[in-house]
This record gives sequence, C-alpha cells and structure tokens, in this order.
Amino acid sequence: MNAEIVSVGTELLLGTSVNTDASDVSLALSELGINVFWHTVVGDNPARLTECLYRARTRADLIITTGGLGPTCDDLTKQTLARAFGRELYFDEEAADTIRGWFAAQGRAFTENNLRQAWLPEGCTILPNDCGTAPGCLFESGGVTVAMLPGPPRECRAMLRNHLMPLLAERSGETIRSHMVRMFGIGESAMEEQLRDLMDGANPTVAPYAKTGECLVRVTAKAADADECEAMMAPVVEEVCRRMGDTVYGIDSNSLEERVLELLVGRNMTIAAAESCTGGMVAQRLTAIPGASAVFRGGVTVYTEDAKCRLLGMEQKFIDRHGVVSAAVARRMAKRVRKILGSDLGVGITGWAGPDGDDVGLVYVALAAKGECFVRRLQLGKNSDRERIRTVAAHNAFDMARRYLTGLDI
Amino acid sequence: MNAEIVSVGTELLLGTSVNTDASDVSLALSELGINVFWHTVVGDNPARLTECLYRARTRADLIITTGGLGPTCDDLTKQTLARAFGRELYFDEEAADTIRGWFAAQGRAFTENNLRQAWLPEGCTILPNDCGTAPGCLFESGGVTVAMLPGPPRECRAMLRNHLMPLLAERSGETIRSHMVRMFGIGESAMEEQLRDLMDGANPTVAPYAKTGECLVRVTAKAADADECEAMMAPVVEEVCRRMGDTVYGIDSNSLEERVLELLVGRNMTIAAAESCTGGMVAQRLTAIPGASAVFRGGVTVYTEDAKCRLLGMEQKFIDRHGVVSAAVARRMAKRVRKILGSDLGVGITGWAGPDGDDVGLVYVALAAKGECFVRRLQLGKNSDRERIRTVAAHNAFDMARRYLTGLDI
Repeated sequence: MNAEIVSVGTELLLGTSVNTDASDVSLALSELGINVFWHTVVGDNPARLTECLYRARTRADLIITTGGLGPTCDDLTKQTLARAFGRELYFDEEAADTIRGWFAAQGRAFTENNLRQAWLPEGCTILPNDCGTAPGCLFESGGVTVAMLPGPPRECRAMLRNHLMPLLAERSGETIRSHMVRMFGIGESAMEEQLRDLMDGANPTVAPYAKTGECLVRVTAKAADADECEAMMAPVVEEVCRRMGDTVYGIDSNSLEERVLELLVGRNMTIAAAESCTGGMVAQRLTAIPGASAVFRGGVTVYTEDAKCRLLGMEQKFIDRHGVVSAAVARRMAKRVRKILGSDLGVGITGWAGPDGDDVGLVYVALAAKGECFVRRLQLGKNSDRERIRTVAAHNAFDMARRYLTGLDI
Repeated sequence: MNAEIVSVGTELLLGTSVNTDASDVSLALSELGINVFWHTVVGDNPARLTECLYRARTRADLIITTGGLGPTCDDLTKQTLARAFGRELYFDEEAADTIRGWFAAQGRAFTENNLRQAWLPEGCTILPNDCGTAPGCLFESGGVTVAMLPGPPRECRAMLRNHLMPLLAERSGETIRSHMVRMFGIGESAMEEQLRDLMDGANPTVAPYAKTGECLVRVTAKAADADECEAMMAPVVEEVCRRMGDTVYGIDSNSLEERVLELLVGRNMTIAAAESCTGGMVAQRLTAIPGASAVFRGGVTVYTEDAKCRLLGMEQKFIDRHGVVSAAVARRMAKRVRKILGSDLGVGITGWAGPDGDDVGLVYVALAAKGECFVRRLQLGKNSDRERIRTVAAHNAFDMARRYLTGLDI
C-alpha cells in the first residue's frame, strides 16, 4: 500500500509553523508497513489543493490530509476534498453535539462558528477528536482511501493513533519493522565508513543519520509478519553494535536521558544536577520522561556566580581563583549538588553558551559519584549557536552518566 | 517571484525527522517578499526527485532544495539536479580544501568519503557552509534559479541566512512585511469571532492561528517598499490590539518568556523560579534567550518533596498539611526562591503532569513579588499530555509575570 500525505495550511508555507503532522503520520504509517513516497504542503487554497489531490490519487492508494478542519473561514479542506471526490457535505447532528459538549466540559465559551466543523462528507466514517473540536473522517472513492486529520499537532496525533491507525491496520497485508541503534561520541561520516557495506542491503535496509551531537542507524525489514522481520534484523543489528562498540548507547531508546533514567531505575540509584550554561536543560529533559521522580532528586540552575554561592554554598574566592568556567568549578558544582540533594550521582555544568565572548563553546561537564569525580572539557566551536552548545553539553552529561552506570571509561 | 521548496530525505518520509528546513526557508523567503506555494518532500530517490523538479520548474522561478548534500552514498541531490538541469559535475579543489580544513579546525578525523561533497555543478555559485562540511550552490537554468542547501537544520539555516538570502534579496522586486500579534488567555475560535471582518482583507491580510496554549494573528502587507508596507499595516495592527485588549502580550515578540525578559530588563528587575512539575522548563526557556543572566537569578527544580525541603527550606509538615499540589505550597515555593536568590519576582509551580494519577492536569502557579503573592489554579485537562501540561503551566508563569510587570490584573 502506498500513501501520500497532503498538509494544508498557509502558515506552513509562510514558515511560521513546522510540519510535525507529516512526520507523525509518516511514522505511524511506517509502523503499519505502508510506504510513503511523497509529502506535499499547500496553502489554504482550494485550486492548488485540488490539483494536488488529482495527482495524489493517480499514484497512491491512501491519501491522508492534515489541517484545514477548524472553525475559521480559511479551513477549507473538507469542502475541497468533498468536491474533488464527488461527495456532498451534510450537517452531522451527533458531531455538533460532541462539539458543544467539548466546550461545556472545558468550561470554554462556545461560539457558533464551531459548528462549521460538524459538516462532513456523506457516507464517511467519523474519526473522533479526543483533544479538540474538529472531527476527522475517512472515506473510499474509486479505490483510493481518503482520510482527513486536524492540523493542531496534538489533535492530529491523538486522532491518528487512537482512531485512524486501528482502521488502517486491518487493511495492510505486509509488515514493516525497524530498530534504531543510537550512538554518542562518533561523527556521521566516521560511522558511515564503518558501516558502508551493510548499507548496500535491500532488506533489511541500513540507513544512517545524524541529529544534533549524535548519530543513529535505522535497520528496517519488510516481511509477512513481525516475527519474520525480527529474525531478519537480528544479525544486522548485532553487527552494527559490534562495529560501533561502546558508542552505542541504546537500541530503540528515545534519547540519552531515557537510557540514563532506565539505568538508574535498574540500579536503584538517583541523580541531581547543578547547571549553569545549560540553564535547567538537564533537569527539564529528565523530568520530561514519565517516572523521572523515582531517580531525579532535583536540580539547581545557578546561572550567576551569586546563585552558585547561594544555592550550592560555593565561595566567591574559589570561583575567582579558578574562573567560573573551569574544571574545578564544574567538579565542585557536581559534588555539592550531589551532597545537598543526597543523590548517588551529581552533574555539574559550566560553560560559555554565547553568543558573545571569546570562549564561546567552552564547557566543562562534571559527574560526581561516591568517592570519585570525572570531568570532560568540551570545545563546541565558536560557530555553534547557543542552543547547540547547550544541547551537546547536556548530551555529554547524560553520556558520562550512562558510561559510569555501565562500567565504561568516561 | 514564486518559489518552491523540495526537501530530499527518506528520514522525512519515514517520519524520523521533522522538516524544519522547509519552514526555515519559507520564513526567509516571506521576509524577502517571495511567494511559496508548494513544499514537496521526496526520498533519496533520483527518479522521484527528477519528476518533482520537472514539475517545479513549470510553476516556479526559484527552486530551493534541502538535504542530500552530505558525504554518505544516499546523498544524491547534486547528481540528480545536475542531470535534470543538464549540467556536469566537477571536482572543486577549493571546496575540497575547505572541507579538509573544517575537519582540522574541529579536531575531527577526516575520512575520504567527505570529498564527495566537493563535486559541484559546473558554473554554479558556491554557497559556503559555516557550520559543516557540505557546500551548497546556486545556478540558473532556463529562467529558473536553483539553489541547494544542506539538510542538517543548523547548516541549512546558516547557509540560508548568511549566503543565499543576500543573493536573493537583489533579485526580488516586491517587498512583503508582516507583524505578528501574540496573545495569551483566549481560544482560537473566540479570537476569530472578534476579528472575522478584518480577515476578509486582501492586502493587508489578517491570518489567525493557534499554538500550544496561545493564539497568534499575522498581519501581512505587500507593497513596493518596506515603508509602504508598514503604513498599510499600522491601522490594522492597532485595531487587532484594540479588540483583543490585554490578552495581547506582544507584537513580533518571539515568546512570552522573551517579553518577560524584555520587561524585566526595562524595569531593572530580576526573577527566580522554583519548579516542581515543570522540572526546569521555566529556567530553561528563560536561559535559552541571550542576555538572560542580567535578569534571571537562578532556579531550583524541586521535583520531590524532599528536594522542596532541602533546597527551599520547606517543612514536611507544611507539605503534608496542604498537599504537595496546593496553592499554599506554590505560594511558599515562590516566596522562598525569591528570598533565597534575592530576586524581585519569584515563581513557584507545583502540579500533576501525569500520565498517571487522579488529578492529572491540576497545577498551581504562584508569583511572589514585594509584599504580595498571586496564585493561579489551572485545570489543564485529564486528556492533556505531559508536555502540554508542562508547557501551558510555564506559559502561565510567564503570563503572570508580564501582567504584574505591566500593571494588569493577574
């Protein structure tokens, strides 16, 4: 089955919104073994949307649109699709009641324009919106399945996962499965040099890519069922891991911090963080994961020298002697936060995130544990932006923790 | 001038990467007054990329590709574009030297496959890569301008802003300018009801949209020069602001936190934050802005009851009496962090971010100032995800601060 994703919204073409819906839908379809060969974005423009739909139905069995289902007058997806596929719209009383009920439940003021969302193509299957008001829908036309999802990412994702995927799962004959091998501490091209021969395979495929500061390899197999996919992938994943050694931090982990959290839970250990240039990013990333409270004892954002003294009991003299961005200060931050919060591990990060200053990109990351303290000096480059410096510094803190927790050199 | 953006990368179709490049390029083009009517995403597949280019050149004067310029063997954009537009590739010695120099400067191991990136279409203008190794390029063919940018978002953005935009600015005859009116505390459809008649205008246009927890209106004018655009927009922006009242927190602000930072700087005041369920998000968002150190005194992430006692000197008895998620605890967190860090304002946030528990979505946000303390009780809905609850809770903290700083009711 081949699918095509059509995203509707002038805000996407203006660049004020990012098309996360297309990636969410793609990810879901690849889990179902449905190929996606095209994403197209058009504005809130019926003529161009129609042109796009006419093309899509010549090359896809499944067309999924995102966006343009809302209550405002530039939301034209339903009207345009109904016309393109020769359907009338009808007013669905039940959908209207659901919309009114949603406003009541949220305690928000109902306005009449919201009822525009209750007009739906005749004969469609309604896809409920668990997080908002605009219902989606699904219909068949001339051998093509057409589904409409709302634009707001949260609404799109919930409708996709809760309602559209179960309906599509029944229709797909083939299964695709993939595993993601995630690495830290190696560059993309160095990784590819070591994996090049594996990348020639057609099934399973081996595809490398890079994210801020880390590398990933996706191994994907296509077969009749999940077991067969797994059997095909196992030796390839094993070989990737063998070659990449201890830069591999996880298979199918979502992130370094999730791996660290998992390791801490497994060892019944805790962590705390004292952050300067990362400004709470380590804490924020850890607490974004459900269950973080079991292992994360807390953190301090000590962005100024004064805050380092007040919250960590550091002495201004000590900071003056070593410089605020120094291995000594990072170590002390890590040790102090570990002690103050009574955690097994303590992270200390101090550096220059820029954009101004002579030493932009210089960061020290320390990890304190019982009886020992490790420090990494990072030179993240004067041309790096603030966000990258902060992200890579936080990555290093998590990498040091995972290496410590798995008994590797740090 | 009409442009079309073609993004190349199987990872986009698999949904493992989000197409931020397309929005970055779109935003830049709209600043230059260049219309964008289509985004297309294709995989690392020369046939489909070629099909897409053939179509694009019938409807656009400018085609910008992103992705597929890297050193790995699935990076095929340059070869495919050269063939589609009848150009040969040549090996550019200077580009090769730049690539070798980049590795040396970063202290990273050079591998031979990186030199694939030095093959460029004959007669092109090279676009330097300030953040990586793959150069981009620009050429003309049959009245169409073709530009290639790298896929990694940081590299794409830098090349776009530093090198491609200056070249394109010379070619555009028309100017587009826009202003963004940003609001907090009103829903999308309620906003649209109040602005509907303004949305009928063709120039300037008025376009509403929603982001997690906030609403935006973009006013856009097209004219011969920037002054004329501004004159056309001024009365419309003023009218939007008049109708939306004090829900408007900024015009062309990037975010609530940036507005708060700006207000604090203007009043020579400081802020500190004690965060439980938001886990450092307030600190992280403030410190993501250059210059935050002037106003952000620091923060604590007190994710556990024990951390609230250790870092803020709260008493366990007090927490037990009121419950850890309560107005009293939020107030005390705000007051204590303000006092400990010696700031003018203190934020305290405590709530249930989920996913489990009976009270998921219940959050108290407090703002302490000299002699007074305000608290908001938020019920963010049991169906909200963890990330949304955290984000909206942090939004509320910033909104309370901006209302306090501008003398509005909180």
